[in-house]
Amino acid sequence: MKTAIFGGDKRMLFAAKAFVEAGHEVCIAGFDDMISLCEIQICTPSEAAHLCDIAVLPVRPLSGGFLNTPFSREKLPIAELIRMIGKKPVYTGCADQLRSYALGEVHDYAAREDFVWQNAQLTAEGAVGLLVSGYEGSVYGSEILITGFGRIGKCLSKLLTAMGAHVAVAARKPADLAMIAQFGMEPVDYTALDCSVYQVIFNTVPAMIFDQEKIGDMRDDVYLIDLSSKPGGVDFQAAEARDLTCVHALSLPGKTAPLAAGTIIKDTVVKMMGA
Amino acid sequence: MKTAIFGGDKRMLFAAKAFVEAGHEVCIAGFDDMISLCEIQICTPSEAAHLCDIAVLPVRPLSGGFLNTPFSREKLPIAELIRMIGKKPVYTGCADQLRSYALGEVHDYAAREDFVWQNAQLTAEGAVGLLVSGYEGSVYGSEILITGFGRIGKCLSKLLTAMGAHVAVAARKPADLAMIAQFGMEPVDYTALDCSVYQVIFNTVPAMIFDQEKIGDMRDDVYLIDLSSKPGGVDFQAAEARDLTCVHALSLPGKTAPLAAGTIIKDTVVKMMGA
Amino acid sequence: MKTAIFGGDKRMLFAAKAFVEAGHEVCIAGFDDMISLCEIQICTPSEAAHLCDIAVLPVRPLSGGFLNTPFSREKLPIAELIRMIGKKPVYTGCADQLRSYALGEVHDYAAREDFVWQNAQLTAEGAVGLLVSGYEGSVYGSEILITGFGRIGKCLSKLLTAMGAHVAVAARKPADLAMIAQFGMEPVDYTALDCSVYQVIFNTVPAMIFDQEKIGDMRDDVYLIDLSSKPGGVDFQAAEARDLTCVHALSLPGKTAPLAAGTIIKDTVVKMMGA
Amino acid sequence: MKTAIFGGDKRMLFAAKAFVEAGHEVCIAGFDDMISLCEIQICTPSEAAHLCDIAVLPVRPLSGGFLNTPFSREKLPIAELIRMIGKKPVYTGCADQLRSYALGEVHDYAAREDFVWQNAQLTAEGAVGLLVSGYEGSVYGSEILITGFGRIGKCLSKLLTAMGAHVAVAARKPADLAMIAQFGMEPVDYTALDCSVYQVIFNTVPAMIFDQEKIGDMRDDVYLIDLSSKPGGVDFQAAEARDLTCVHALSLPGKTAPLAAGTIIKDTVVKMMGA
Repeated sequence: MKTAIFGGDKRMLFAAKAFVEAGHEVCIAGFDDMISLCEIQICTPSEAAHLCDIAVLPVRPLSGGFLNTPFSREKLPIAELIRMIGKKPVYTGCADQLRSYALGEVHDYAAREDFVWQNAQLTAEGAVGLLVSGYEGSVYGSEILITGFGRIGKCLSKLLTAMGAHVAVAARKPADLAMIAQFGMEPVDYTALDCSVYQVIFNTVPAMIFDQEKIGDMRDDVYLIDLSSKPGGVDFQAAEARDLTCVHALSLPGKTAPLAAGTIIKDTVVKMMGA
Repeated sequence: MKTAIFGGDKRMLFAAKAFVEAGHEVCIAGFDDMISLCEIQICTPSEAAHLCDIAVLPVRPLSGGFLNTPFSREKLPIAELIRMIGKKPVYTGCADQLRSYALGEVHDYAAREDFVWQNAQLTAEGAVGLLVSGYEGSVYGSEILITGFGRIGKCLSKLLTAMGAHVAVAARKPADLAMIAQFGMEPVDYTALDCSVYQVIFNTVPAMIFDQEKIGDMRDDVYLIDLSSKPGGVDFQAAEARDLTCVHALSLPGKTAPLAAGTIIKDTVVKMMGA
Repeated sequence: MKTAIFGGDKRMLFAAKAFVEAGHEVCIAGFDDMISLCEIQICTPSEAAHLCDIAVLPVRPLSGGFLNTPFSREKLPIAELIRMIGKKPVYTGCADQLRSYALGEVHDYAAREDFVWQNAQLTAEGAVGLLVSGYEGSVYGSEILITGFGRIGKCLSKLLTAMGAHVAVAARKPADLAMIAQFGMEPVDYTALDCSVYQVIFNTVPAMIFDQEKIGDMRDDVYLIDLSSKPGGVDFQAAEARDLTCVHALSLPGKTAPLAAGTIIKDTVVKMMGA
Repeated sequence: MKTAIFGGDKRMLFAAKAFVEAGHEVCIAGFDDMISLCEIQICTPSEAAHLCDIAVLPVRPLSGGFLNTPFSREKLPIAELIRMIGKKPVYTGCADQLRSYALGEVHDYAAREDFVWQNAQLTAEGAVGLLVSGYEGSVYGSEILITGFGRIGKCLSKLLTAMGAHVAVAARKPADLAMIAQFGMEPVDYTALDCSVYQVIFNTVPAMIFDQEKIGDMRDDVYLIDLSSKPGGVDFQAAEARDLTCVHALSLPGKTAPLAAGTIIKDTVVKMMGA
């Protein structure tokens, strides 16, 4: 099986290595400064598209109509890449962004439950890493609020509870609030959210949760981490105006755990091919 | 109560603040660039010694015969400081280093069980932070070895297990090995230590554990963290020769959790004064 | 507030006490041998219906057209009880069974998420109690299978994992299988279920899961507990024919934790009244 | 290897089976009503002593000068048994009780750290089983006191915390109190023990802890379990006078987990023979 990796960040390099270990012949394109990488072939996009049996693209394949290639100075229109790949099967995240261009099958590895959960776990770990590295207090014994009880909220609240923090989770659905209580954490209704009591606040909800008023209620020494994707769920200007410590943690887990994140891309693609 | 803080790192500044919150009048000496810090008085050592009822020194008060003042360009011989303080009570870590100089009572807050355990917990958290930030894999599911089952080994192994790692702990005493097994981890006898199977290795033992031979057995991609104080328990030259990723993590938790570390200094001193 | 409890098992007596503690005036009907119970009034059904402002019925209010009264020798047709209660609000479990009879509002406390989760937790605890009391091995270190990852499956698998068992959970949905893996347990697809490796098996699924063939695969010393309601998910005849240890655990948690089960009935009704 | 089991309760039968699985030829004595047990030979004591290479006795081998044989109507003076066994090696618990009689080597398996910890874990599980079966409330969310932080206290507090109880542990040593706090439980000094706040109380200390006065402070509905060996640490008369629910749990884990308890006897003896 000849597998081509197109673009993406460091995790795609680890995915490439993992495909090699799984017995694939692997080539990569979209990494300008990479001169050699074990037995992986470094290619141009057209060479890679020509050589491969399957194409693997990043979790977020697109950046303004171009292939998402943070490690390349060249911009490759996605339509052009897809034309090069032709009818060969494509494995990517956010497949919907590609479907209008695609000529062959497009498989969405990031839509798979196992991928999403493992990715959530890695994101939660990365968030813990940010907290431990940046926060001057201890996790143990601290008062932490998490907004949202989706996969990342579940993984993160479990980790922080295991580390000895007092964790409150804000959620909307009664079923989630009941499950939160059952797991030994404090369920909080958004309408009753009192931001003044928490030393650490994580947002996982992709909507404006922490507006100017809520920012105004927070402690001066709060540590605020937004894990939701752009534009995030925090009024960053209000946070800056108050001089709060506030981090918008984008591109977890690609930055903090590229090896693990790359490995689960490989694992998922291999499972999908076998199914 | 007038309390003077002499020297130390960032955690002593947080300790100073914590004493203020506990109702003390606080002055600090040994922080050259500090111009103002809430209601804390910034002093020279002799002013502080003159003003105070009690003197609080860092966990490691000495650095080659001088007061340990990483944030000051001046070097103050410890004998001189002690003379200034006179018969006022001194609270410090490593009190033995001061006893030959001391004129009054010297209390060792770092010898107290509650301090040592809380400090171990903070150190373990800091170690987790180093791991999550630096290691490219995930903690969840990784194979981790910890050498030593003292307080730091206990706290660290508990945290990593809670985070989903497979944790093996090397220890000498049969009682420790039995307790390790009982806590759901893998007990390892030093004589049977196979370093080749672990992705992450923590040393907590202040003795040469990982010599050239053991370093030679490790995986190329091992992540090796030495938590023991200088000179450490790793043959760092051998590790460098093999190009292993190796971190000697000194001055945890002062660096990673200065607020929490300062707060427990205050807590302990206040408890000792009340007792 | 005058509250009448009609029928049910021991947990309804504890619910009655809990209503007293919450400031209600309480009367009970359907407990023949009860002569006095703190300040609770012991009544006939018609007296209770006459006195009360609200009526509280058991989680399973019906038993073949009659009020479910395991502690009474008299059989009261549910239609008659409902006529006595008239238009007063009724709080019950399984409200659907009563809706055709009802004259006033019927509120289903057992349909509430918080009730269901807390009840699941109590059921899981009761199941652990059955296991520890009946099984001759230890939970710690044992190989346990749970079928189903609903609320009871979630609570039970969490408890057993926390107790040091190796837990596998069989589920159908990919999302559940992924979550099981994420929580540190072994996900098992029903199609790949190998019953021969488990020392303990819990069924939580109300469908025939363990048929004659699967029973045939089990170890001679398996400990098999069916938590699903009648008729259960086990071929009990086949299990008996093989002389397996097999328990059909009905009426958890009313039997094992009547105080806690009664308290959550009171808690839920009070919350519903306040909403 | 020919192994003879002399006396003891059900766990010794499971130990016998476990020795068979480990490849030993096994005979047992001291079980009157046992007619056959897989391939195990049922013997008189003198036959067993004659046949065997090693003798295995119960954790508590003595009962008033006689071999401890709860499943036999005959009383065998220990001196007579030891004379029969002669110079063959004896493995037993409480070896000190036998040393004055012994002719050959006496090995104490119950003095080994691994045995003691595993036994403590089984005892803790059995205690949880007693609680779940007998207590009418739930473990989850309950207020529990444990006196003593030896091995059983450690295992039990860990289990109950994992099950969601709020656990306080009373201990004497500052090191223990600090470790208790670090493990997320509430440390309690004996001098400040307020018995009135706990729903469940476990004693693990073999000394009079709960005297008449402390019994007087307890809640009416307390559930009190004494795990210490006779005479126990509770004024049982005072408890009875107050009509408290009080259990003296002797012979855990032999009663609740004989298979597991027997297996660790076999495991330990085999390890000692190999060492």
